[in-house]
Amino acid sequence: MIPDNDPILLTPGPLTTSPATRRAMLHDWGSWDAAFNRLTQTLCEDLVRIAGGDASYTCVPLQGSGTFAVEAALGTLVPRDGVVLVPNHGAYCARILKILGRLGIEAIELPFAEHEAASAEAIDALLAREPRITHVALVHLETSAGILNPLARIAAVCARHGKPLIVDAMSSFGALPVEVAANGIDALVSASGKCLEGVPGMGFVIVRQALLEDCAGRSPSLALDLHDQHAYLQRTGQWRFTPPTHVVAALHEALAQYKEQGGLPARGARYAANCAALIEGMRALGFTPFLDAAVQAPVIVTFHAPRDPRYDFNAFYAAVRDAGFVLYPGKLTEVETFRVGCIGAIDAGQIRRAVAAIAAVLERLGISVR
Amino acid sequence: MIPDNDPILLTPGPLTTSPATRRAMLHDWGSWDAAFNRLTQTLCEDLVRIAGGDASYTCVPLQGSGTFAVEAALGTLVPRDGVVLVPNHGAYCARILKILGRLGIEAIELPFAEHEAASAEAIDALLAREPRITHVALVHLETSAGILNPLARIAAVCARHGKPLIVDAMSSFGALPVEVAANGIDALVSASGKCLEGVPGMGFVIVRQALLEDCAGRSPSLALDLHDQHAYLQRTGQWRFTPPTHVVAALHEALAQYKEQGGLPARGARYAANCAALIEGMRALGFTPFLDAAVQAPVIVTFHAPRDPRYDFNAFYAAVRDAGFVLYPGKLTEVETFRVGCIGAIDAGQIRRAVAAIAAVLERLGISVR
Repeated sequence: MIPDNDPILLTPGPLTTSPATRRAMLHDWGSWDAAFNRLTQTLCEDLVRIAGGDASYTCVPLQGSGTFAVEAALGTLVPRDGVVLVPNHGAYCARILKILGRLGIEAIELPFAEHEAASAEAIDALLAREPRITHVALVHLETSAGILNPLARIAAVCARHGKPLIVDAMSSFGALPVEVAANGIDALVSASGKCLEGVPGMGFVIVRQALLEDCAGRSPSLALDLHDQHAYLQRTGQWRFTPPTHVVAALHEALAQYKEQGGLPARGARYAANCAALIEGMRALGFTPFLDAAVQAPVIVTFHAPRDPRYDFNAFYAAVRDAGFVLYPGKLTEVETFRVGCIGAIDAGQIRRAVAAIAAVLERLGISVR
Repeated sequence: MIPDNDPILLTPGPLTTSPATRRAMLHDWGSWDAAFNRLTQTLCEDLVRIAGGDASYTCVPLQGSGTFAVEAALGTLVPRDGVVLVPNHGAYCARILKILGRLGIEAIELPFAEHEAASAEAIDALLAREPRITHVALVHLETSAGILNPLARIAAVCARHGKPLIVDAMSSFGALPVEVAANGIDALVSASGKCLEGVPGMGFVIVRQALLEDCAGRSPSLALDLHDQHAYLQRTGQWRFTPPTHVVAALHEALAQYKEQGGLPARGARYAANCAALIEGMRALGFTPFLDAAVQAPVIVTFHAPRDPRYDFNAFYAAVRDAGFVLYPGKLTEVETFRVGCIGAIDAGQIRRAVAAIAAVLERLGISVR
């Protein structure tokens, strides 16, 4: 029924999901029905647990992509006269700045190089220098290059300064620990189609309930009003507007598998093994990772492109796709690179087959890597 | 593989989809991949065609529920200092007023009774009286009670006054003609999980391209910026942010079936037959429709609730659900009613079985209808 010959997606969401997760979409659900309300409720409880939240946290699911949930969090939780510190070392940090610009909220950008992690010390110094800052918005894992930021240390700095921290954990949540309660994180955003291995179509925000309750009527958007979404869900058990029922059912099923497989430690370990197999295999072909190992997250790896003039990304991408593996198109770094994701319902064996496919393509196209 | 014992959804979206539409979600898609871009492109072309658009119209798909697309259309197309006339006779009209309030756009409400269609004459008179009005926002089919508004006549009035018309055609599009070009409609909004019989998770706006191109940077939201979404799609063939890939694939498949089955005339005829079977069967049980036949759309029928004190909606709903049919919970009219949808991948035979199930439930619960 499910064809075996679909390409493997080596992209950081949408990614390759398990057949059981996709089969969960073979049912239709009434979005007002009690059975569906139970799906939503258990899913939200699971997400708070995975985030390391305690009873003071709640989960608000939201229709749309992860970016919709990031904008909802910023627009609902930050007052219009707030000032948000945004460490910036990639496209997803820049997107937060763009959202704040649209919302008319002042942002103070703290730039880092695209191969560097955000520095807790620099954030500390800026918070000391700029008392106008009211909130910090951090990307946990900057997917542009694949950098992991020191979340616990940055959260500790924010807590010391008494500044609420809003974390975009889009491509880390579920695989890398976030521990919102222990770290004192106020809000954390992620989505269905990333490390939880659901399909794309909904985001969610894990947020301190007390903070959210202060934000009634603040959102300049009805659709993206997290407070209203949460209040309605609490009151009725239903989503305010039509939920993506099949996407919710798929995430519910993906979370069941997540728990069966051993939860976050197991998910993180599988991705770390995938990442190690990818880097080892690609190094053997002559490729060099763009990032230092110290800041490389086990989610997506950016490699320097071959210098060989015969190398053309589009031709390379198409040939690797024909061999059954979809790379992540589009480079986001200033130097010539390409990116390979190592998340999804895949293991190190599939990663090694992808590397073998890349080797065969290089040979056939006559491209020398070194 | 697909269980036959799932309940039939008699709700106006999410609704019962065909097995082939659900099976389209058994594949994963790379959202940057050319194969997926082709899905998006053909889907958008199909939607413009179904809307009766010509080359001056474009289709902008958007992540989220239909309400997200309605807010995106209003926030992108209406300037902050615009004044929008909103005929109001139900929850979906009221939602437009709420969205405009959040956007800080002045609205002038034109109220109608909840069992009446919006009157083209009243709109004409108000436009003549209030030259400050810049736009009209109309719900084509007010799903609260199931009323069909006279779209062509209202569009003609708007055109005569030179006021752009934005139509929420959520629960009518695909089954009832909208003919945007012939009627001079400027923008029309609908979603995947309604009469097109896809699954919920995306909306879309069919809009005059020239109008949209004037709206760069106007949206106060990044996620809901239709201009930006359209420009990026034109430039790259891709959605700006992660699309709900499986929902898109399901809609693409649902549209293939739509065309095979004879397109809009066939879809409208099947729903009309479903609606006739429903009303005939329910009348035979003693139920009376809330609306006059003249304004009843063949999408959802509101019935007066039994006066019998033994009638309790929740018990009735649960018993009908156990018999395999999900009614639409929640009444939106001022008098006691309940609603039954007649759209989705179902035919008059299933409607008659639903009526038989309702009859059996009434008898078992000892409820007298008259």
